[in-house]
Amino acid sequence: MDEDRPKPPMSPEGTVPKAVVSRLSLYLRELQHLVQYGHETTSSTQLGTVLGFTDAQVRKDLAYFGQFGYPGIGYRCEELIAAIKQILGTDRSWPVALVGLGNLGRALLRYRGFGQQGFRVVAAFDVDDAIVGQHIEQIPVYHLDQLTEVIDELEIRLAIIAVPSPEAQGVATLLAAAGIVGILNFAPVTIALPSSVKHVEVDLAIELEQLSFAVVNRSEKT
Amino acid sequence: MDEDRPKPPMSPEGTVPKAVVSRLSLYLRELQHLVQYGHETTSSTQLGTVLGFTDAQVRKDLAYFGQFGYPGIGYRCEELIAAIKQILGTDRSWPVALVGLGNLGRALLRYRGFGQQGFRVVAAFDVDDAIVGQHIEQIPVYHLDQLTEVIDELEIRLAIIAVPSPEAQGVATLLAAAGIVGILNFAPVTIALPSSVKHVEVDLAIELEQLSFAVVNRSEKT
Repeated sequence: MDEDRPKPPMSPEGTVPKAVVSRLSLYLRELQHLVQYGHETTSSTQLGTVLGFTDAQVRKDLAYFGQFGYPGIGYRCEELIAAIKQILGTDRSWPVALVGLGNLGRALLRYRGFGQQGFRVVAAFDVDDAIVGQHIEQIPVYHLDQLTEVIDELEIRLAIIAVPSPEAQGVATLLAAAGIVGILNFAPVTIALPSSVKHVEVDLAIELEQLSFAVVNRSEKT
Repeated sequence: MDEDRPKPPMSPEGTVPKAVVSRLSLYLRELQHLVQYGHETTSSTQLGTVLGFTDAQVRKDLAYFGQFGYPGIGYRCEELIAAIKQILGTDRSWPVALVGLGNLGRALLRYRGFGQQGFRVVAAFDVDDAIVGQHIEQIPVYHLDQLTEVIDELEIRLAIIAVPSPEAQGVATLLAAAGIVGILNFAPVTIALPSSVKHVEVDLAIELEQLSFAVVNRSEKT
C-alpha cells in the first residue's frame, strides 16, 4: 500500500501544532468510515463537511505533511489512510502495557478501538494476588514488581495508567524508569515526568463540558 | 462570586470555533490547579506556557467571550474560573443519566472528575435483572424500560452511553425521544441523531495516536 513513497516531510520548522495532529486522527477515522462504506476517493469538502471544518482547513492541515490530492480526483482514501498512519506512527503495531485492573482497566482491556488502530495491550500489571498470574481478556497479568523486566523483555514503549489517583505518580515514575516513552494517564490527577517522556492526561469531564456548552448555547438561541 | 456581571458576549456571529471551546476547558483546569496551589492571579503567558500555547493564543481565545484581564495584575483566578464556568454552562450542576453498567459504566460511576466539574450521575440504566433495583456507588439502577419516565421525573438533559456497540444506536434513539439534548457516547461506533441532540463520540484511541506521533517524532530527531 505504501509503494516506497518518500516519507512526508514535516513543516520547515519541524513542528506541527498539536491541534493539527489531533485533527489528523479525525481525518483518519472518517477516511476509514468512507472505505467501509465503499468509497474509493473523497475531497477536502466532503471530509470537512462531515467533521465540521472548512475545506480550506482540511487542505491546510494536510499540507503540513505533503501533497496528497490529485487534480480532478481528490484524495484516494486508502492512500491517504496509509499516509496519515505513517505520519501518526500507527502504520506499525504498538505493544502497550496497562497498569491497574480495576473497573476502568478491565474496560480498557475490552475496548476494541485500540486494536483497530494498531495498539495491542500485551501485558497488564496489578498488585492484587487474586489476579496476578492469571489471564484477563487473554492478556497476562503480572505483578507490578515485574514491570521493568516485562517491559524490557517485550520491548514495550507505550503504557496506559488506570490506577487510583494516589498511586498514579508512583506508577508513572516506575514506567519512565523502565524505558516507557509515552504514557496515557486516566487517573484524574496531573503527573510530573521528565520531558523525554510524553504523556497525555485523559480528562473525561472535558467532553461533558463541551456538551454542556453546546446545550446551553442551543437553549439560549431558541 | 458572580456579582451580577453581565453575561459575556459571544462573538459577533454568535459562533465560537470548537477548538476554542475545548481550550476553555484546559484553561479552566489549569486555573483550578493554580487556585489549589494558592495562586490568586495569573497571566496569559503563565497559562500558555503550562499548556503549550502562546500568550497571544490565550488572549485571543478569551477575547471571544469578553475582557477578563486587569492592567498590571493579569487574570484573577477565581473570577476567571467563574466566568469560564458560566460560559461552559458548568456554573450549575447537571444531573446526568448513565446507560450501561458493564466495566466501563461502573468505572465511569466511580470517576471523580465528573463530580468535580459539576456533573452528577443521578440515575443508571441497565437490562440485567441482577442489578436493576440495586444501588451501585450509591446511584440507583433502573431498568432500561423506565428510561423515559425517570429522565422526565429527574429532569435530566445529559446522558452517557456505555453499552456495547450493537446497542448504542438503539439507546441513543431512546434517549433522544426521552428529551435528552446532549449525549456522550463511549461505544466505539458512530451514532446518528437529530441535529437538535448534541453528541460527542469519545474515541480513546485518538489519545494513543497523539502519543505515538509524539514518540515517533521524538525518536526520529535523536
